[in-house]
Amino acid sequence: MQHLIRTSDFSKEEILDIFADAREFLKSKPNEILKGKIIVTLFFENSTRTRSSFEIAAKRLGAEVVSLDVGTSSASKGETIYDTVANINAMKPDAIVVRHSECGLPESLKGFVGCPIINAGDGRHSHPTQALLDLFTISEHYNGETEGKKIAIVGDVRNSRVAGSNRRLLPRFGIEVNLVAPDCFKYESDDFKQYNNIREIIDELDIIMSLRSQLERHNLTYFESLNEYAKDYCITNELVGDRDIILLHPGPVNRNIDISDEMLKDPRTKVLTQVTNGVAIRAAILKKLILNKI
Amino acid sequence: MQHLIRTSDFSKEEILDIFADAREFLKSKPNEILKGKIIVTLFFENSTRTRSSFEIAAKRLGAEVVSLDVGTSSASKGETIYDTVANINAMKPDAIVVRHSECGLPESLKGFVGCPIINAGDGRHSHPTQALLDLFTISEHYNGETEGKKIAIVGDVRNSRVAGSNRRLLPRFGIEVNLVAPDCFKYESDDFKQYNNIREIIDELDIIMSLRSQLERHNLTYFESLNEYAKDYCITNELVGDRDIILLHPGPVNRNIDISDEMLKDPRTKVLTQVTNGVAIRAAILKKLILNKI
Amino acid sequence: MQHLIRTSDFSKEEILDIFADAREFLKSKPNEILKGKIIVTLFFENSTRTRSSFEIAAKRLGAEVVSLDVGTSSASKGETIYDTVANINAMKPDAIVVRHSECGLPESLKGFVGCPIINAGDGRHSHPTQALLDLFTISEHYNGETEGKKIAIVGDVRNSRVAGSNRRLLPRFGIEVNLVAPDCFKYESDDFKQYNNIREIIDELDIIMSLRSQLERHNLTYFESLNEYAKDYCITNELVGDRDIILLHPGPVNRNIDISDEMLKDPRTKVLTQVTNGVAIRAAILKKLILNKI
Repeated sequence: MQHLIRTSDFSKEEILDIFADAREFLKSKPNEILKGKIIVTLFFENSTRTRSSFEIAAKRLGAEVVSLDVGTSSASKGETIYDTVANINAMKPDAIVVRHSECGLPESLKGFVGCPIINAGDGRHSHPTQALLDLFTISEHYNGETEGKKIAIVGDVRNSRVAGSNRRLLPRFGIEVNLVAPDCFKYESDDFKQYNNIREIIDELDIIMSLRSQLERHNLTYFESLNEYAKDYCITNELVGDRDIILLHPGPVNRNIDISDEMLKDPRTKVLTQVTNGVAIRAAILKKLILNKI
Repeated sequence: MQHLIRTSDFSKEEILDIFADAREFLKSKPNEILKGKIIVTLFFENSTRTRSSFEIAAKRLGAEVVSLDVGTSSASKGETIYDTVANINAMKPDAIVVRHSECGLPESLKGFVGCPIINAGDGRHSHPTQALLDLFTISEHYNGETEGKKIAIVGDVRNSRVAGSNRRLLPRFGIEVNLVAPDCFKYESDDFKQYNNIREIIDELDIIMSLRSQLERHNLTYFESLNEYAKDYCITNELVGDRDIILLHPGPVNRNIDISDEMLKDPRTKVLTQVTNGVAIRAAILKKLILNKI
Repeated sequence: MQHLIRTSDFSKEEILDIFADAREFLKSKPNEILKGKIIVTLFFENSTRTRSSFEIAAKRLGAEVVSLDVGTSSASKGETIYDTVANINAMKPDAIVVRHSECGLPESLKGFVGCPIINAGDGRHSHPTQALLDLFTISEHYNGETEGKKIAIVGDVRNSRVAGSNRRLLPRFGIEVNLVAPDCFKYESDDFKQYNNIREIIDELDIIMSLRSQLERHNLTYFESLNEYAKDYCITNELVGDRDIILLHPGPVNRNIDISDEMLKDPRTKVLTQVTNGVAIRAAILKKLILNKI
């Protein structure tokens, strides 16, 4: 039985198979591949958009979804997460999708279940389905020719789990990862080229991935104001010019902080394509993990 | 592609077709007309009864429903409603049902979606599915002979979106609309006959539509007490007598304020019939908008 | 039409039929026995685990579930529970599952509905599906030979609805019920042998049912601390020794208060088996009540 805790749980070949399925799902009508399967979503951290992406993905394949709002019940009765998960597992679901603010939590649940765990985000660590949909979006744009492409991941690269997962995944497909962040958000590692300002590297880039400035998560006091931050890190038409670059963002976008209004309307901006691809990629992952299990 | 923002989005002929479908749905077992379709309910204003009416309607036709509790997530991340809706739309649902406290909000979403928008109530403006189920209830009672019937809409006609939608819809089917309200709730218009007291007109009526005294919405201070209000506006057996009148109310009823306990048990009171009809009408509307789209 | 308000609503023969169905559901794949049926869960008292057990049970039989979070909407609009239920009933669901903190509430709803009511817990009174899954777990362990078995129900037997339902159900299947509780939690009745300390009777027992010390419900001040309580009432390996006893608990377990960590891992502890059986029993009950209705 296979889990998806981090992107390295899948080989390159497996990822390409997932992409092939996702491509198919984007073209075809809903089907019943997962008819009779029950998928539990267990979000200890609220995320309407990721949860509904999984829910729609599951339903497009004919599966049933049980959404457990875990903040409010068992937890308040003093039960540990491990007991909660062991209980849910005893109800014999076919997969459990978990989101939690603590790094490593989904990994630690593997011993308590008899079905695949899918990590829908754990702390600053990983968000593997997001990284896979990002890579898929890039790969589709370049007709699978990702080798040698250069990306800059821009923003809070230290705390972002989206950055974390992409940093590990993209190089496996030949994409050179560059990190662009103010000092306070720098990622402490020598594995990547790091820049303070995107202008230093923009001429070499094929892809920009803007990150969400996560105000609600870090209670920033680094900048006098978000507008200060935006001056250097907001992706605008003026910055991108007429370069042949595509722009990604995991959403939700802080308008005019992460990306300008005008740039959001630019056809090079793939934010909504990522959302569409996200449903297809999650459907392909659910199919793989649930059907392989049997 | 067609939306339902207000009842005028449908021609008389289209409405009669919807009624024919609803009549059929009331008689027949659940079917799979909308199998594989995904309907998102997006309620910015809580309403268990309207949301569950849509949910049951959708499920009776074999569709899947994704309920997004929008108050709690993206909104708190500072995303605009337009971005939230554009994102949901990118997940390719087959219809989006929206309820919002702001007049005109559902209309303004049309440019952001590729699927039908169904207005489940916007501010004081419209509640088109409610008006259609009200008309259907009246029409079924009179075997389709609505021409020349007289209705009094009683209560807070100024602020009620139910009144708003019915005021516009019923005259199209030959029903004469009279408004009965205290001065503070009067509708500012000369298009309708208005009365302070229902006794002035009750002898002419075929239908009374009592409105909900919406304490939670307007924080009324007009009346010394609700009992003061009830004295003139509560529909009682004593008031109705043995007249051949049917009584409607959109629910939930404030007992003995809007309608007396005794009158609620009277067979002329159609409140629960309206609820049953509401599921059938919403199913017929979902069928029309989703299948026409393809 | 049949409801399940308390276990005495079913004859012994009916219960054995339910067990036969549950046994079959545990072995077989999901089916479509309840395809096209709509089950409403109406929890006035939050319980993620009971609600999701019903939801998964329903979905395993192909039914649709509409979960109404009743605390937040209609209730806040001043509607009575009876009006809420009459309204839901007017939407023509095939069963309504109700949980409420008030004893007798589900019983009192019977006059307002045209479909089966299933009691998912009412105050201190009953929790019939829990007692049935407990009996099923015992019966499966002893291959149906329950006659003459002895159980001790341990803990807050006065306030527990699980104890209430089991106290009435188990003797019908020949199981001798003993109650073990501190004075403050004693059940006021002479119908059962009661003990202060489980050591007085443990040598005679086949089954121990530990109850949840419901801190959140009773705001206990009887004991200086929970550890005080645990000294006498926590089920440990040291207490059970190598006796041929099985241990049940309705969950969630307060670790090292109700049952020790070590004992929870012991194969004689059936807590997770109860959870698995719970889904199957609830499926069998839904099947019986909904299909019999037609």
